[in-house]
Amino acid sequence: MTQRTPAIRLEVTPDGVVSRSRPDTVAVEEPLEMRVGGTSVSVTMRTPGDDFDLTIGHLLTEGALHDATDVATLMHCLDEDESGSPTYNVVDVTLAPGATLDLSRSERHEYTSSACGVCGKTSIEAITTRRPYAVDRDPVRLSPAALVAMPDELRTHQKAFDRTGGLHAAGLFTPEGKALVVREDVGRHNAVDKVVGWAGREGRLPLVGHVLVVSGRASFELVQKAVMAGIPALVAVSAPSSLAVGLAREAGLTLVGFARAPRMTVYAGEHRLDLSQ
Amino acid sequence: MTQRTPAIRLEVTPDGVVSRSRPDTVAVEEPLEMRVGGTSVSVTMRTPGDDFDLTIGHLLTEGALHDATDVATLMHCLDEDESGSPTYNVVDVTLAPGATLDLSRSERHEYTSSACGVCGKTSIEAITTRRPYAVDRDPVRLSPAALVAMPDELRTHQKAFDRTGGLHAAGLFTPEGKALVVREDVGRHNAVDKVVGWAGREGRLPLVGHVLVVSGRASFELVQKAVMAGIPALVAVSAPSSLAVGLAREAGLTLVGFARAPRMTVYAGEHRLDLSQ
Repeated sequence: MTQRTPAIRLEVTPDGVVSRSRPDTVAVEEPLEMRVGGTSVSVTMRTPGDDFDLTIGHLLTEGALHDATDVATLMHCLDEDESGSPTYNVVDVTLAPGATLDLSRSERHEYTSSACGVCGKTSIEAITTRRPYAVDRDPVRLSPAALVAMPDELRTHQKAFDRTGGLHAAGLFTPEGKALVVREDVGRHNAVDKVVGWAGREGRLPLVGHVLVVSGRASFELVQKAVMAGIPALVAVSAPSSLAVGLAREAGLTLVGFARAPRMTVYAGEHRLDLSQ
Repeated sequence: MTQRTPAIRLEVTPDGVVSRSRPDTVAVEEPLEMRVGGTSVSVTMRTPGDDFDLTIGHLLTEGALHDATDVATLMHCLDEDESGSPTYNVVDVTLAPGATLDLSRSERHEYTSSACGVCGKTSIEAITTRRPYAVDRDPVRLSPAALVAMPDELRTHQKAFDRTGGLHAAGLFTPEGKALVVREDVGRHNAVDKVVGWAGREGRLPLVGHVLVVSGRASFELVQKAVMAGIPALVAVSAPSSLAVGLAREAGLTLVGFARAPRMTVYAGEHRLDLSQ
């Protein structure tokens, strides 16, 4: 997940520039091409590792697959780089008998690469993805004390961030604050996809009664991914966007931002909070 | 760029939870559909404002257009929301006579929405976009003292971030440290596209001798956008990725990370630095 690279550290002082050459550790970023039955359906820049989870989580949270059991097999196509070494940058999915891939939101040429929630959709009207689970009916009760402590717990699992300062993290928590799985990636959406894909492969979807915690901001797309995985609560260390708040309210998701113990801000779904604790 | 929304601020204390309802300011996130001659070519989540710059910058840095003069007119299609109000979420580009749109990298169905540098490209092999300008031949000399001061100068222009904590920023600087233009957006790539689009519309491309400063991390895609705009130096407040470093070295771009006065780390293109200053 990390790589050593030559670097020069500079410090500008009143007496001049002090420079020191020494290797630095950076987060690895590599493209991953996802194929279904040999056909390319997506390319994303990601940090290598948990590629099968990333692929399943991506296909599920984008609505292309309905259930993790739609996947029969997953394999790395062993493409080779110019030196003949395998790259592990292509994952091929074989669908289970009877399963279908829904690419209805990709029926036009699409070449944007910005972080977004509607890229590849055929129209802006399709912004809210059909959701397979009724998150709004999740009866879980959440303790503010448990929620506000989750980012610090997430932080203790961010091993690659410690070395690089360059990775986002996502973690799946129990309401009591236990981290079930934590993933790091250069792409914030990938970290969430890896968590959801793990849950899918473990047969844990929908993630009723769980809390998703992310190290950065809460965008529309991260709320969408939580909703698609049936997660009733999203806790973000940083700010939410207007559309993230709007989707959370519409879908019945509890959305917490600026979660930095002992404080946090609740933007949606406050009915799940047990303020008596 | 910002919006008020109801929110509840909580503080967990030893004596219980203190809660206070009060409006919070969040960054606006809305989809923008880019059309060329009426045909949809891209949808991105962005913060409204400078949509024409965003569209031109996106098309240029993704290699779909070769020059800003390829664009004859830009207009907002006045789509209406359910209440009959115009949404301003669609921009339609009319090309100049003889100009062509190059969508060669989008000749397959693509529905990914992760932040990435190769989404929509026909293959992983196409990772390095053809670049119209020779950034590696830019003879500009850069002073470490000027570079390291740029993020603080950028910060003084981040008006919407001050209110929301939820926006990325990109700024175009002279080598001496003067900010020519600063843009904020929920999407980091959009902020850069808005800066490049502004320069394109001002007839300033290629941006020989300029420095691009970004508020966050340096990904592969941000380096790609700088290279496509002919910018010889990218300064990031946070960490670069492995592929960002690799592309910067290949293209001859000066890449600075962790630029936090008085320190910074140089990952590529150190030959432009004047260490005697």
